[in-house]
Amino acid sequence: MTDLRTSRLAHLLVNYSRNVKRGHKVMIGGPTAAEPLLLELGREVLRRGGHPMYRMSPDRAAEVFYAEAKPAQLRFLPDSAMAAAKEADHILRVIAETNTQALADVAPKKQTTVQKARRPLQDAVLSKNAWTLTLYPTEAYAQDAGMSLEAFEDFVYAACRVDAEDPVAEWKKAKAFQQKIIRRLRGADEIHIVAPDTDLTLSVKGRTWKNSFGSHNMPDGEVFTGPVETSAEGEIRYTYPVCTRGKEVVDVRLEFEGGRVVRASAEKNEAFLKTMLRTDEGASRLGELGIGTNYGIQRFVKNILFDEKIGGSVHLAVGRSYEETGGKNKSAIHWDMICDLRRGGYLEADGKVVQADGRFRV
Amino acid sequence: MTDLRTSRLAHLLVNYSRNVKRGHKVMIGGPTAAEPLLLELGREVLRRGGHPMYRMSPDRAAEVFYAEAKPAQLRFLPDSAMAAAKEADHILRVIAETNTQALADVAPKKQTTVQKARRPLQDAVLSKNAWTLTLYPTEAYAQDAGMSLEAFEDFVYAACRVDAEDPVAEWKKAKAFQQKIIRRLRGADEIHIVAPDTDLTLSVKGRTWKNSFGSHNMPDGEVFTGPVETSAEGEIRYTYPVCTRGKEVVDVRLEFEGGRVVRASAEKNEAFLKTMLRTDEGASRLGELGIGTNYGIQRFVKNILFDEKIGGSVHLAVGRSYEETGGKNKSAIHWDMICDLRRGGYLEADGKVVQADGRFRV
Repeated sequence: MTDLRTSRLAHLLVNYSRNVKRGHKVMIGGPTAAEPLLLELGREVLRRGGHPMYRMSPDRAAEVFYAEAKPAQLRFLPDSAMAAAKEADHILRVIAETNTQALADVAPKKQTTVQKARRPLQDAVLSKNAWTLTLYPTEAYAQDAGMSLEAFEDFVYAACRVDAEDPVAEWKKAKAFQQKIIRRLRGADEIHIVAPDTDLTLSVKGRTWKNSFGSHNMPDGEVFTGPVETSAEGEIRYTYPVCTRGKEVVDVRLEFEGGRVVRASAEKNEAFLKTMLRTDEGASRLGELGIGTNYGIQRFVKNILFDEKIGGSVHLAVGRSYEETGGKNKSAIHWDMICDLRRGGYLEADGKVVQADGRFRV
Repeated sequence: MTDLRTSRLAHLLVNYSRNVKRGHKVMIGGPTAAEPLLLELGREVLRRGGHPMYRMSPDRAAEVFYAEAKPAQLRFLPDSAMAAAKEADHILRVIAETNTQALADVAPKKQTTVQKARRPLQDAVLSKNAWTLTLYPTEAYAQDAGMSLEAFEDFVYAACRVDAEDPVAEWKKAKAFQQKIIRRLRGADEIHIVAPDTDLTLSVKGRTWKNSFGSHNMPDGEVFTGPVETSAEGEIRYTYPVCTRGKEVVDVRLEFEGGRVVRASAEKNEAFLKTMLRTDEGASRLGELGIGTNYGIQRFVKNILFDEKIGGSVHLAVGRSYEETGGKNKSAIHWDMICDLRRGGYLEADGKVVQADGRFRV
């Protein structure tokens, strides 16, 4: 039998995150491992009078693709995939990896080629602004988190608030709480972040703070903006490893001058870190400052969809900023790194404490 | 690990049935249960330089759809589904039901509405003439066949000849053998079929015999034509139950006059049989005479993809004929029913025996 919480998550995504209406066409995408959730999403779309359009692929499709594809195949994007993205009124995408190391040995250049070829599709999806990304619990994710699947499921559904009596009410509360934080931050020029081995200032003058409350990510729970690209000064030590493309960069420390990284070190995979920072001009500047507000997420699970929302943490991403924040940094990368303020850290806006030891003063 | 025979079946379908070439776009469709085969099909398409385009849906998608959908939803067909069918150079469809009774309680009218709505899509696929249908073994199919999954897998892969050293060579041999049968039948006016409680004559004058050797069905193995619609005279007792829409019509007997069914009986579901024959004018006339040639299929498994090809059987379908045979019968239905000639039956063309006791005289 399907976990009842799967049905509740589907209900939340269709009725709250996407607010599907009669006649809406809803693309439901994900791998085979996500099937129980995909099926329930289809059911909820039908109940709202909408039209589910499934776009599933085999769990190991990407692995086989990279193993076999020649350059012309790496660059291929079907016209009908674009047509489907354009036809859809909403796009629900579920990640559900069965092995988070499946692409560990794929040449980064190949991945970049594929990402570039698929950018028009990604742009079409993002510009529609009617997408939601979520995760269906798998053994692979549980393993990365150092948990049993049973425990990881509890973790995921708690983070999404679907274990609450009224999940929608919970997300509306979260939205209101985050709005209070934004009211404290709005108009402030200087942000000051202090934590172990961390003392960083940056300017957010003229930038917009966004409230992220479950429309595009589930779970959600953050407020974010794009700092002034030339403003970062000082040093930061990230609390958790940065996991990307099957690599783990451990104990990242960055030093900024005039907004630019001038020194970078890591305990593990330092060379990879430095290569990433040299991707392009924007890769060594900050593109995002995010403040996590989800206290349903208490531990680091090596999955950015959850980790960046840890209540009491902040994340500072090098690379591309989000246009809607007014951020102007351009880059091919966007690399989120998390600094936990729960043990002796604080964040100030124009000299006034907004969050200390992981608790907000709003 | 994937059954090696799954890879061999994928290889046969991509390299022989479809003959995929560099740059071809290949739609690969099926439910989750077919995943191992779908993945291998994708791999083979990539190896030929083609582009796999997956179109999977959850195993229970149809069941949930019928349970929830209102009329406007039953009638919905996404434009992008048509676009994808038109873009594809080849279409590979894999059936893999996890419960062949999943739609048993769905009102026939609902199913008709859906079939009608999706007809443009089906027509687009059929008119392209670049499709292949196959089956991936499931517990549900094995159960219908009265076998273990292990035994049913052996049965399926033997029927598809992928247990042979060179499956392509086997299918080329089958094609040549069938061509011999067609040479015997070509130009004949009258077909006479005799078996227990069966004595039927029909005219195939001016009609074309088609050789079916693995392009559109896998397994395959039949030659077929469309009889003259007004020609059938006599009676036939079908050997095996007719299974459709979750119903089993047992021991069907039909009597023809002037090509039309004038008497119909069945031991079980006789009323359903009679309703089907009254669907429209063409539903009570023969649309196809097929002659099974696949001696890898020795037993009835309640699945028409296999049963109609039983070496030594013939099938006579009421309803729609295939245009390419010159058959002119029109109907919303096409109902294959099988008469086994292996025990005392025979088939004559213009008075000369073509097949007797299940063996061809060619």
